[in-house]
Amino acid sequence: MPRVSQDHLEARRRQILDGARLCFGRFGYEGATVRRLEEATGLSRGAIFHHFRDKESLFLALAEDDAARMADVVAEQGLVQVMRDLLAGDSEHPADWLGTRLEVSRRLRTDPEFRGRWAEHSQQLTVATRNRLEWQRRSGNLRDDIGVGVLAEYLQLVLEGLVSHLAMGLPADDLEPVLDVVEDSVRRHRGD
Amino acid sequence: MPRVSQDHLEARRRQILDGARLCFGRFGYEGATVRRLEEATGLSRGAIFHHFRDKESLFLALAEDDAARMADVVAEQGLVQVMRDLLAGDSEHPADWLGTRLEVSRRLRTDPEFRGRWAEHSQQLTVATRNRLEWQRRSGNLRDDIGVGVLAEYLQLVLEGLVSHLAMGLPADDLEPVLDVVEDSVRRHRGD
Repeated sequence: MPRVSQDHLEARRRQILDGARLCFGRFGYEGATVRRLEEATGLSRGAIFHHFRDKESLFLALAEDDAARMADVVAEQGLVQVMRDLLAGDSEHPADWLGTRLEVSRRLRTDPEFRGRWAEHSQQLTVATRNRLEWQRRSGNLRDDIGVGVLAEYLQLVLEGLVSHLAMGLPADDLEPVLDVVEDSVRRHRGD
Repeated sequence: MPRVSQDHLEARRRQILDGARLCFGRFGYEGATVRRLEEATGLSRGAIFHHFRDKESLFLALAEDDAARMADVVAEQGLVQVMRDLLAGDSEHPADWLGTRLEVSRRLRTDPEFRGRWAEHSQQLTVATRNRLEWQRRSGNLRDDIGVGVLAEYLQLVLEGLVSHLAMGLPADDLEPVLDVVEDSVRRHRGD
């Protein structure tokens, strides 16, 4: 495929994802109708569903997008930094989009295929988190009395709590020291 | 008011709450129509709304009920025990009801009055958690380098993560050691 065409496809895909993220965030999963997705992306349903099979695939592509961006931060700075970015509002994951992630919880719980596709997309965040922790362990910065798998699960559970907290619009200006506790609890301490 | 009548009112209120919890859990907040609430409680809408002003009040009464039960466990055994109970499925908070709590996140975020009523009801859990931590500190079991307020926020953030995790039907059979990490991270250690 010629280069220009591939660039064009990628730009179009990005345009759809950016518009859809705003649309899902604003109207919720159910409320993001095809009509509203057309308005938000500035593209016809034909163009949108040329790139994404259906609304579910579009939503899952956004979840994968989140996971990929977070995995990049994790690789460089760890999962606690992802949380600090969320807290600072520095990320491209505003509360209304985070809320949409919560709204699909019923679907995730009751639809094994949907859950499977979601889990597959989130997998890269888990892998990045484990890799980062293994690297920290080799560097001697990580506590060594608990397995890396458990520590990865722990950090991801806190991230889920933070996502839920922000999505509910609960006060978050005092959570910075809480994240310090989280970071400290996976670290190796002098004398350990 | 004669005793028998008060008992009757309390029993009726309990009957409504129990039925409504199942109904919200099964159909979600939006899906729990008045018709379905009648079926689930075995009572007429007149009887239901004699006890609770509207659906929102009924839902918030359930959230308050949750907070009260959790606060009882917190007072005796701490917030990590609440999480262990949730994990073991020993509580009266099955995943589908937990999911309904997530589904109202948009409403919580965008409707300050609703958020205010929710926060008021959840307040007793926060108070119980702080009281328990203060007591642990006086007993010398709590780390003393971090304020009780921060540790309470920390534990509540993890609880939010667990609620979200269970509501999404994600695998939870390996979370017991994660809760050990959480418990350990607020404890005082020998040599501290």
